[in-house]
Amino acid sequence: MSEAVLIYAASSHDSNLLYKTRFQAGDPIVYIEAGGKNMLVLNDLELGRGKSEAKVDEVVSMSLVEKELKDAGNAKPTVADIIVRVLEQRGADRVIVPGSFPLEMADQLRGKGVALTYRKDPFYPERTVKTEEELGHIKESIRFTEEAYARAEKTLRETEIRGNELWWQGAPLTSERLRKVIDLFLFENSLLADHTIVAGGEQGVDPHCRGFGPLRPHQPIILDVFPKNLKTGYVADMTRTWVKGKATAEVKRMDAAVKAACETAFRTIKAGVESTDVHKAVQKTIEDLGFKTETIDGKPQGFFHGTGHGIGLDVHESPGMGKRGAPLKAGMVVTVEPGLYYPGHGGVRIEDDVLVTKDGCTNLCTYHKTLEIP
Amino acid sequence: MSEAVLIYAASSHDSNLLYKTRFQAGDPIVYIEAGGKNMLVLNDLELGRGKSEAKVDEVVSMSLVEKELKDAGNAKPTVADIIVRVLEQRGADRVIVPGSFPLEMADQLRGKGVALTYRKDPFYPERTVKTEEELGHIKESIRFTEEAYARAEKTLRETEIRGNELWWQGAPLTSERLRKVIDLFLFENSLLADHTIVAGGEQGVDPHCRGFGPLRPHQPIILDVFPKNLKTGYVADMTRTWVKGKATAEVKRMDAAVKAACETAFRTIKAGVESTDVHKAVQKTIEDLGFKTETIDGKPQGFFHGTGHGIGLDVHESPGMGKRGAPLKAGMVVTVEPGLYYPGHGGVRIEDDVLVTKDGCTNLCTYHKTLEIP
Repeated sequence: MSEAVLIYAASSHDSNLLYKTRFQAGDPIVYIEAGGKNMLVLNDLELGRGKSEAKVDEVVSMSLVEKELKDAGNAKPTVADIIVRVLEQRGADRVIVPGSFPLEMADQLRGKGVALTYRKDPFYPERTVKTEEELGHIKESIRFTEEAYARAEKTLRETEIRGNELWWQGAPLTSERLRKVIDLFLFENSLLADHTIVAGGEQGVDPHCRGFGPLRPHQPIILDVFPKNLKTGYVADMTRTWVKGKATAEVKRMDAAVKAACETAFRTIKAGVESTDVHKAVQKTIEDLGFKTETIDGKPQGFFHGTGHGIGLDVHESPGMGKRGAPLKAGMVVTVEPGLYYPGHGGVRIEDDVLVTKDGCTNLCTYHKTLEIP
Repeated sequence: MSEAVLIYAASSHDSNLLYKTRFQAGDPIVYIEAGGKNMLVLNDLELGRGKSEAKVDEVVSMSLVEKELKDAGNAKPTVADIIVRVLEQRGADRVIVPGSFPLEMADQLRGKGVALTYRKDPFYPERTVKTEEELGHIKESIRFTEEAYARAEKTLRETEIRGNELWWQGAPLTSERLRKVIDLFLFENSLLADHTIVAGGEQGVDPHCRGFGPLRPHQPIILDVFPKNLKTGYVADMTRTWVKGKATAEVKRMDAAVKAACETAFRTIKAGVESTDVHKAVQKTIEDLGFKTETIDGKPQGFFHGTGHGIGLDVHESPGMGKRGAPLKAGMVVTVEPGLYYPGHGGVRIEDDVLVTKDGCTNLCTYHKTLEIP
């Protein structure tokens, strides 16, 4: 008997499954690696599509296994029964699942005597190092994202400052309108960006605030765009901070510090380096430039998130590059995204995606980082 | 001591969590119901947004709990430690989680002595019965979806038949181009449809085939559109089958049978009725009209899926209306979507969304069901 890998998830929400099968499914499907082969066990609705689209060694008909079980006296076989049967047929008596594996199925399988344990993330460590093909997909997503920034910048350049208001095409420019310029261009090109951040002024102090309402002149506006290519599944993740009009002296100082922090990361990232050490170097650059990170009245301020994270089929994947991390390897693609956030001033964050190499890193993003947009 | 409810998930992928908090989060967050209150435990990145946006009684700062644990001697508290601490503080010693709860967290909590069990779907049975507000959101999604069908129909009417080809705006009409007409209109109106089916001819025989390549005249084209409103989270789910040109006699017969099956469902659906009985009645209508459901050469054909399912924050939610089901209740919104699929002829499926009432049901969809588009 031997060990098997089992995933039970919708591949549309489970990148490990998508990575191994390249098969898009919106409802949970059964994936098994056993006896040197990998396979999907699919119901009649997915069977035909699975046979033609899935990149697996075998596609097993769930209804055929169900019939076998019924013939053997099980009147109402469950999906768990079907999984147990397939595992037995493949000689597997132990099962490894991802940490995200659903408890209900785990408890059912354990109840049927399956020795089931989870493996911590990264479940497939090979996912962290990108193949040439994967790198090409990421670069393509970055190109479209940069084109979306160009559309947003054009919009901001066309925008008129009227006192404390911004006007574009006959109406106040809002986070929602600027976001639509970005998201719609991406969607037209088959990239889905459904949580794009366009957060101005105080809203930018909260790094996950999506932004809403009228944007204002002379205040930093954070634009964080992380679309998924609906054809390839691969993402880009970029951030720029822009001021329409004139930035204050303090925001200019914050911007300079964030750019210096980016440069520290670019200099430090290299195969073999611990990603946590990159983060520490970035934190030191920011501290050395006089910016404190602390919690005041329960509100964190300064630089209080990680320096970056891996990207690929997920926007956030291994390795982390913050308090927790991993040794960097050539072929990893990670974000570099230091930020500074102070109530009364706003937020400044800049984010590029870089490829880790033997000797350092290559920045895959080329879009300019000029703060002020006239 | 008492029982608590615990969810650990990203609300962007977990509708139970979104239902209870109305808080959008792309990474896993901690949700707890204990001592008569519900709360989110959020890290510093989400804290500010959570306090202003989440519809919960309390937002707990994860970093404050972490600090308490460190002060008490735990040098590196995990998220599981933090959950245990919050549960203790609220006097909970037993925990109920959804079946989808991640095994890794479940095993960690059980390892720390938490009595943790899952509850089967529907986790919140009250989700199946829609409030007036939820119904309004679903109706809004349906209106946009019907407007998208109008755009698609206009496209097909503008399309020219040239022999065995369809031409639109100077190029062959493909599944991809017709899908883009639908998806782009929806996205412009803040509805996300990222798996729209436009499957013609043989492709339509596989109910989950999304469709690709040139569409052909005189063949059925299945258009299944199920967008999510990005503002409200609520979906619509509709299907129409169209033939550009003239349908064959057999496809007309299939279309008539599917429409009769819809009518059977509309007549049968009513509060108090078992949804499985609706499905049986629909199956009988189709059989009585001479259409067989069987598997030939490993390929299922006929009517081999359920009659429908609940919709709401998810495209597929309770109650099911197929082999498995539940008693229907007034206020449920379910799809009615019989279909027939035969190699050599193609597929015909028609799908509306209906509101279950005390006396029957109300069809929320008004778009016509004419088969042939001239």
